[in-house]
Amino acid sequence: MNKSILQRNSAKMVECCMSLMLFLSFSAITVASSQCSITGIPLVRNISEIPQDNYGRAGLSHITVAGSLLHGMKEVEVWLQTFAPGTHTPIHRHSCEEVFVVLKGSGTLYLASDSDGKYPGKPQEHFIFPNSTFHIPVNDAHQLWNTNKHEDLQFLVVISRPPVKVFIYEDWSMPHTAAKLKFPYYWDEQCYQTPPKDEL
Amino acid sequence: MNKSILQRNSAKMVECCMSLMLFLSFSAITVASSQCSITGIPLVRNISEIPQDNYGRAGLSHITVAGSLLHGMKEVEVWLQTFAPGTHTPIHRHSCEEVFVVLKGSGTLYLASDSDGKYPGKPQEHFIFPNSTFHIPVNDAHQLWNTNKHEDLQFLVVISRPPVKVFIYEDWSMPHTAAKLKFPYYWDEQCYQTPPKDEL
Repeated sequence: MNKSILQRNSAKMVECCMSLMLFLSFSAITVASSQCSITGIPLVRNISEIPQDNYGRAGLSHITVAGSLLHGMKEVEVWLQTFAPGTHTPIHRHSCEEVFVVLKGSGTLYLASDSDGKYPGKPQEHFIFPNSTFHIPVNDAHQLWNTNKHEDLQFLVVISRPPVKVFIYEDWSMPHTAAKLKFPYYWDEQCYQTPPKDEL
Repeated sequence: MNKSILQRNSAKMVECCMSLMLFLSFSAITVASSQCSITGIPLVRNISEIPQDNYGRAGLSHITVAGSLLHGMKEVEVWLQTFAPGTHTPIHRHSCEEVFVVLKGSGTLYLASDSDGKYPGKPQEHFIFPNSTFHIPVNDAHQLWNTNKHEDLQFLVVISRPPVKVFIYEDWSMPHTAAKLKFPYYWDEQCYQTPPKDEL
């Protein structure tokens, strides 16, 4: 009889656990979809209230101001990014246009324009400063550093063809063909994912 | 003999005038082409040194930060625009995406979302404020006003598919089919023009 109670209790626990898992699974889908849904988002948004994250990179703050996955943009995307002193982007390239408008701070743009070669090669260095603008030619490998020890570097970034498909290099002599595709990119991962299959 | 000197002088004057016209004509082409050439422009540019103009609209300052005709952009274009108190854009639409980032000041966005109707109709009013962002759906008629009596309204504008092709409405009840195409738009006129034919 004790065994029978145990069996019944076990069966109830399994049932309870399955219900809980089902509940948590639905909750996760609901949270993800509400963060990623483009419906219900106000037309005019306060940028300081849009979620920001460092996506695992210390010293980074990324905000998708107007995005493909978050706001339904199809042809352009706008980011607000802040880099703490000494931090930088990876060396990378992407097959889209990219325009920067520097809002504050200063730093260095490294740009390897010889995208026709087998690898980026030694990049040219360009000083970037408040109220400066520059654009990255399609597929040119580049990297941005906050080389100012005392101040954050903050810029608005505009890209075409969102969501961005980024090829990352370990160094400037890595062959273009060896650069590693990161897609969806860190800030697009959550909303690019299709809802997980219900395995119950 | 006096007549002969007069004739010779007249001939010289005509020759001189033609040379002058030729010189001015070439000068005009040179000035226009140097302002519109995308070669020789530094990669990193100080926005405060980029030419600005009101293009005949009192109270407007327009700067093409990164442009199709000025900087060789193909997929995106970025403007910095400032509207004095009480000034506004025309009611207009364009077949491209457009994102605004308000840097300072405040105002009103009028947006008529019913682009499927025969005319824009009564627009919705949206308050815009510093550090706010919004985008205009493709082909929706809209108008921006600086409704703040005391402060300039300044924003960065991002458009896709440059150079912009603008259809202008006289009022919100003007049929879409009657809206007047302005292309090239005011700030694209100088560099869109092909060099004038040499009629000499």
